[in-house]
Amino acid sequence: MRIAELSRLSGVPAPTIKYYVRESLLAPGERTSHNQAQYDERHVDRLRLIRALLEVGGLSVAAARDVLAALDSPETGRHKVLHAARRTVAPSRVGGHQDVAGRREAVAEIRALAERQGWQVSEQSPALTAAAEVLDALRRLDQDDFADQLDAYARAADAVAATDLEIVRKRPDTDAMTEAVVLGNILGDALLAALRRLAQTHRSAELFD
Amino acid sequence: MRIAELSRLSGVPAPTIKYYVRESLLAPGERTSHNQAQYDERHVDRLRLIRALLEVGGLSVAAARDVLAALDSPETGRHKVLHAARRTVAPSRVGGHQDVAGRREAVAEIRALAERQGWQVSEQSPALTAAAEVLDALRRLDQDDFADQLDAYARAADAVAATDLEIVRKRPDTDAMTEAVVLGNILGDALLAALRRLAQTHRSAELFD
Repeated sequence: MRIAELSRLSGVPAPTIKYYVRESLLAPGERTSHNQAQYDERHVDRLRLIRALLEVGGLSVAAARDVLAALDSPETGRHKVLHAARRTVAPSRVGGHQDVAGRREAVAEIRALAERQGWQVSEQSPALTAAAEVLDALRRLDQDDFADQLDAYARAADAVAATDLEIVRKRPDTDAMTEAVVLGNILGDALLAALRRLAQTHRSAELFD
Repeated sequence: MRIAELSRLSGVPAPTIKYYVRESLLAPGERTSHNQAQYDERHVDRLRLIRALLEVGGLSVAAARDVLAALDSPETGRHKVLHAARRTVAPSRVGGHQDVAGRREAVAEIRALAERQGWQVSEQSPALTAAAEVLDALRRLDQDDFADQLDAYARAADAVAATDLEIVRKRPDTDAMTEAVVLGNILGDALLAALRRLAQTHRSAELFD
C-alpha cells in the first residue's frame, strides 16, 4: 500500500509516519520509484505499537526507540528478556548538581528495603538507582512520611511483580516474553497509576465524608 | 539574593531559571533595577519542587505548571485536595483516530472491575478514562493476558491507595494534604515503577534459574 493508505488504516498522518521513519522507529517502505514507497501490514502493526508507547505509555521518541530496539534485538533466550526489562526503567534525568551524600544514603535505604523484602538486588541495577532518586527527592522536599511507608509500597510492588511474572511465564517463546515485559512495564505503569487513582477517589470519599 | 546566587544554591542554571519564570512555574524575583531582580528562600524551595516534578516525576513543563497551579490554588478544604488529585492524572494524548467502540467497551470493563473492587467511580472520572485507554491499547496490541489479570492489578493498586490515604489523613491541614496527594501521586508513581522492577528482577531470577 502507499503512504496515504497506511495513514488511513493507522490513523497516523503521513508527515508523522515520515517522521517516525526518520527517527528510526518505523522501517522505511520499499521504494518503488524516486518518490514512492510501498508499505504492508507490518507497518500498520508497528504504528499501533509506536502510538501506544508514545501516547498511552507517555514515552519520549528517544525512549520509544530504545524500547523498540530491545524488541527488535536479534538476541535470544533470557538475555533478550532481561536486557529488554532494563530498557523499561526510566533513565535518570537528573543533572550533576545533586547532593551526593543524600543520594548515597537513599541507595543504602533502598538496599535495606530490598533486603527486608528478600529481594536480591545487584549494585548496578538501574531500578535501584531510580528508586533511590525518588526517595532522595521526597526527603529533600520534606515528605518524610512517604519514606516511612516504603515497606508498604514495596509489598504492593511485589504483588504487581508476581502478577507480571505470571503473565511472562505463560508466554510461548522468548520474543513473546520480551513483548510482555516491555508492554507490561510501559503500559502497565500507566494502568497501575490510573487504577491507583480510581482506588484513591473511592477511599478519599470515605475519608472526607 | 541575585539570580547568580539562586543558581548556585539550587544548582539550576540561570537561563533555566529565567525559562521557568517565563513559563509561569516560578514567580519572578522582585525587580530592583531595570535588569536586576531579588530572589529569596521561597524561590530556592520552589526550584527544588520544580526539578523534582520534571526530573524525577518525568512531567512535561505544561503538566508541571498544571500541578503547581493546584498547589497554589486559593481554594480550601476537601475541594482543594480533590481538585489537585484530578490534576495528577495524565491527560489523554490520544488523537481522534481511535476506535470508539473499542474504547467504549474498555470503559465498561473498567467500570465492572471497579464494581468488583467495591469502588464507587463517577462517570466523568479522568482516572476511569485513563485506565480504559490503557486497557484498550493492550487489547489492540493483542496483549489479552494482561487484561485477564486486571483484578490482581486492581488489588495491588488498592493497597497502594490505602497507604496513600494513610499518609494524607495524618497531614495537619488542607495545604499539607494537597501536597501529599500531588507529590505522592507524581513521585509515588515513579517510586512504584522502580520498586516493581526491583521485585521483577528478583522474581525473574527465580523464573529463569
